[in-house]
Amino acid sequence: MISVIIIGAGNVATHLYKAFTKSENVSVNQWYNRSLKSLQTFKNEVDITDDLNNLKDADIYILAVSDDAVASVSSQLPLENKIVVHTSGSVNVHDLDKKHKRGVFYPLQTFSKTAQLDFANVPICIETLDKPDYHILKELAISIGSPVKKVNSDQRKVLHLAAVFVNNFTNQLYRIGHEITESEGAEFDLLKPLILETAKKVQDLSPYMAQTGPAKRNDKKTINKHLKLLQSEEHKAIYNVLTESIKKTHGR
Amino acid sequence: MISVIIIGAGNVATHLYKAFTKSENVSVNQWYNRSLKSLQTFKNEVDITDDLNNLKDADIYILAVSDDAVASVSSQLPLENKIVVHTSGSVNVHDLDKKHKRGVFYPLQTFSKTAQLDFANVPICIETLDKPDYHILKELAISIGSPVKKVNSDQRKVLHLAAVFVNNFTNQLYRIGHEITESEGAEFDLLKPLILETAKKVQDLSPYMAQTGPAKRNDKKTINKHLKLLQSEEHKAIYNVLTESIKKTHGR
Repeated sequence: MISVIIIGAGNVATHLYKAFTKSENVSVNQWYNRSLKSLQTFKNEVDITDDLNNLKDADIYILAVSDDAVASVSSQLPLENKIVVHTSGSVNVHDLDKKHKRGVFYPLQTFSKTAQLDFANVPICIETLDKPDYHILKELAISIGSPVKKVNSDQRKVLHLAAVFVNNFTNQLYRIGHEITESEGAEFDLLKPLILETAKKVQDLSPYMAQTGPAKRNDKKTINKHLKLLQSEEHKAIYNVLTESIKKTHGR
Repeated sequence: MISVIIIGAGNVATHLYKAFTKSENVSVNQWYNRSLKSLQTFKNEVDITDDLNNLKDADIYILAVSDDAVASVSSQLPLENKIVVHTSGSVNVHDLDKKHKRGVFYPLQTFSKTAQLDFANVPICIETLDKPDYHILKELAISIGSPVKKVNSDQRKVLHLAAVFVNNFTNQLYRIGHEITESEGAEFDLLKPLILETAKKVQDLSPYMAQTGPAKRNDKKTINKHLKLLQSEEHKAIYNVLTESIKKTHGR
């Protein structure tokens, strides 16, 4: 049995809490947040607190707070020589106060308040400063059904950066698709199966192999038709920069 | 029973052939290609030909050829007053020879040679010059289990353009994610669940509502960290143009 204490009440904290309580191998000893309001829903099932000086004992303390708060909250923890991990993709493990046994427990996924999430689809990237701490963190991740990967700081940073490309930037392309279709009274819904198929394709095929379309073929006629259709200079700039990128990737 | 003749042997033609033969409501009377080689696999199940003057009779002739070939092949068809449709997102319906009853049967999906495709996930966008022809084309689409949408030329053009954004350009962002992670020896595989979840999210939520990340928050610290990490000027340009686009969309 691994005991944990969660610090923070955002999306990551809440999804982790739910996954931990479902696991037979994990007990959540306490849940801290600076305001108790966000924790009220759970007060009958777990010990909640808004006082760091009140923290109980546990095997692992999980800091699921905003990036900017990691350093200061970790230094305020009245603990010594306990395993304290943050959950951020971009914060340095050394930003945690050095009185702790420091580590990172980074779930590589997009979390929203509403959607149910199966942790089988949430790879956990683990980094520890001390080797032995890795094992208990790995066990914790396995307990909630997550794939686990040992990832050093440099690798975690590029994963976080790549995640911005494949998640935030991709989502903005969906948004532009939405704007373009609605401008002619066409339905964005018609694009949804294509969006899903595009994501499914690269589960088995490399993105290089999966590519199709006018940019890859360097089909200038279609590219010019598209540029004429685009009314926004911003959309044109995005069309051009990504078309050039595809052409370069495929040697055009 | 609707009878069809397929012209062309590319991915769209082949996937349509397979879907038609599975349907109890459709018979493929003949399959034409300028070279019989690509059709050899099917010669025992369907009448194949490489001679347009040999074309049989059918309710619908489906031109699944490259965009540039639509006009010329349609004019070579020794038919009059028969329903002839092309399957392209960007070719004008008037590019079909006017001796035909002209229409478009545009499957809005990405087709690859290998992957199995369920036509329930392939919306068919239908356009006809003569109203009555719409109904038989709609029935044909329904026969293979596809959602059907009446779409005019302008709408089809923007759908095709939007498809480039959500499919080709998105896939290039996956490719860049691949390059960035591999540059540090991290695994692209770790990003696959995120890629899928990002696509799933907008099935129920608008892309506007689904957006998260540093650009939306205008988190300059993280944005600068990312720009420093990026080694390629091309990747930096893409990062900048999409970050600005997200900031604009979300009023930053």
